[in-house]
Amino acid sequence: MQNFTFHNPTRIIFGEGQIATLDAQIPANARVLITCGGGSIKSNGVLAQVQAALGDRAWHVFGGIEPNPTYETLMEAVALAREKNIDFLLAVGGGSVIDGTKFIAAAVKFHGEPWDILAKQAEIRDAMPFGSVLTLPATGSEMNNGGVISHRAKGDKLPFRSEATYPVFSVLDPTTTYSLPPRQIANGVVDAFVHIVEQYLTYPVDARVQDRFAEGLLITLTEVGPQALAEPHNYAVRANLMWTATLALNGLIGAGVPQDWATHMLGHEITALHGLDHAQTLAIVLPAMLSVRRESKRAKLLQYAERVWNITEGSEDERISAAITATRVFFERMTVGTRLRDYQIGGRSIGTLIAKLEEHGMTALGEHGDVTLEVSRQVYQFAV
Amino acid sequence: MQNFTFHNPTRIIFGEGQIATLDAQIPANARVLITCGGGSIKSNGVLAQVQAALGDRAWHVFGGIEPNPTYETLMEAVALAREKNIDFLLAVGGGSVIDGTKFIAAAVKFHGEPWDILAKQAEIRDAMPFGSVLTLPATGSEMNNGGVISHRAKGDKLPFRSEATYPVFSVLDPTTTYSLPPRQIANGVVDAFVHIVEQYLTYPVDARVQDRFAEGLLITLTEVGPQALAEPHNYAVRANLMWTATLALNGLIGAGVPQDWATHMLGHEITALHGLDHAQTLAIVLPAMLSVRRESKRAKLLQYAERVWNITEGSEDERISAAITATRVFFERMTVGTRLRDYQIGGRSIGTLIAKLEEHGMTALGEHGDVTLEVSRQVYQFAV
Repeated sequence: MQNFTFHNPTRIIFGEGQIATLDAQIPANARVLITCGGGSIKSNGVLAQVQAALGDRAWHVFGGIEPNPTYETLMEAVALAREKNIDFLLAVGGGSVIDGTKFIAAAVKFHGEPWDILAKQAEIRDAMPFGSVLTLPATGSEMNNGGVISHRAKGDKLPFRSEATYPVFSVLDPTTTYSLPPRQIANGVVDAFVHIVEQYLTYPVDARVQDRFAEGLLITLTEVGPQALAEPHNYAVRANLMWTATLALNGLIGAGVPQDWATHMLGHEITALHGLDHAQTLAIVLPAMLSVRRESKRAKLLQYAERVWNITEGSEDERISAAITATRVFFERMTVGTRLRDYQIGGRSIGTLIAKLEEHGMTALGEHGDVTLEVSRQVYQFAV
Repeated sequence: MQNFTFHNPTRIIFGEGQIATLDAQIPANARVLITCGGGSIKSNGVLAQVQAALGDRAWHVFGGIEPNPTYETLMEAVALAREKNIDFLLAVGGGSVIDGTKFIAAAVKFHGEPWDILAKQAEIRDAMPFGSVLTLPATGSEMNNGGVISHRAKGDKLPFRSEATYPVFSVLDPTTTYSLPPRQIANGVVDAFVHIVEQYLTYPVDARVQDRFAEGLLITLTEVGPQALAEPHNYAVRANLMWTATLALNGLIGAGVPQDWATHMLGHEITALHGLDHAQTLAIVLPAMLSVRRESKRAKLLQYAERVWNITEGSEDERISAAITATRVFFERMTVGTRLRDYQIGGRSIGTLIAKLEEHGMTALGEHGDVTLEVSRQVYQFAV
């Protein structure tokens, strides 16, 4: 096991009906800014539940945070928070709304140009307190301190994180996910699955608990993912999916182990170039990545085959191949295509994708730093 | 899955050499009181490492916190902390030292008679900040907010917990456990194992992640427990044991599931009457408890048999019996006896044990509240 620090102060309030407990989570005299995306939380009644729970508190709503939240939009919220003397932010939505709210919380308190938080990784010394009401199980943003923000004018998309940007609390009510479109559920399952794989499928460091936890989360996703599509109102299924997606990226399974994240980097370029959903790009890249890098991931691929997919027959190479195939079949069963051609993208894009990776400094990715541009090219080619 | 709240703000700093990071964890101008037990942290060099890490800070040492920490001793520490204007407590030791330090932290700030925290469950509104350097993997106190304190004069042993009594941080350096006596390692493994079982082996509520996590921790203990006895200086083994014991009782696997704790309650009476180690009593009671209550725990016992012990052959009853036997064999392999007679205790004690349970109001224990005194009597009898 590698040395690590683990710290996660976010309070999780989990279960049906728990939105009503917001009253106990937010200071009684707080002036609250509710941040959200489009209109879904209005049509499914979540916003009304939130507003009822806030009682007599003064609150305002800032809507319109995009799926890839932009600096331009978020700075409008910063101005509103200052104008209304807001002292508590409440994100109601999925990962994009929560990511965006983390940025608002930091930007309100930031001295100087808040874009520096992203462009220059300027230190966040302080942030407004904020909570979240999660409505989409996928990114894990509800229980971590990171976010990804885009700059519309500059065309940049950059990450940040800070000890000051953990949600104070997050309410996870699985019933808020009942009305999600199947595509968002499918994407969420794939996203969470790949988050786990990036922290698990590297090389062994005898971190037994982290491995068992990661495997438990992966198995759970293989069980509840298809069920979540088939039975949208099955509470137990949605509850297990929601808690799994949160634990997939809250720091726990990644503590003390190597991490990869090359699949994410290659996927980001596909989204940037072709506009695919984030999870779609992960479903394309991961099986190809595992195929191309099967030698350097050999020991963990064998463990993954046995413990997650119960594959114990055949030679080592056969078991590894079977595990990669099982991964691909799982994504396709979740209705997410796993080839570039499934999205009408041909091999001719690869040159541009590689050039973009180079432009962004992504020339030594992966747990060993050996995913060069040449390896990435092989991965994209494998994914055609 | 049941509704739950999960919140655990303790920062874990894990790995060899991490005691040196204390300097970064404790305010630079803090006046520190180091709290500890006997002399082992002096002889194994841990205290010297701690003192070196504190640098120029003013520090005092309060030693002599007992294995079952007493109110009388802890109140001496409270007086010292006030006298020396201490503003940070640093527990260096195992669960008893950390439990005791939690109480000191609360008692220093308490208005009124601090024994009321235990006797009257008086609310702890505030506590001094404290951290820990763990030297014994067992109780999980390093990452939870509870403690158990004894009153020597009154003969009481009572629990408390509070949102204010989480350690700010805990340093977990597996090398500090190298010099532990085998009996303490064995006890720690059994203690952690039973902590997990009390939160897992109840009845199914379709909490898949919690089940998988609990099973992962149990499997890890079955793997590293005997190794920890055989190879005291195997870093990976001690590291996995240490992190497992912490996660066994930090709130995570118990969130959203029923809990039992009857084994602990029956064990406590054996310790009180006969002075056995806590873990010894758990090793005696658990196999008997599972045997007597096999019907009400049937579904989870079958799951436990298959997933933890890989028992898949035979009838349901045969599999359950085999799993209980495997549990007993594991404890005995850890050199911890699993029968009252292993400790020269006969069936004649049972009447007194039952009377004590009744005196302490332990008449409806377990996840269904159906462990009556009559059921407890059967358990003790089974354990002879």
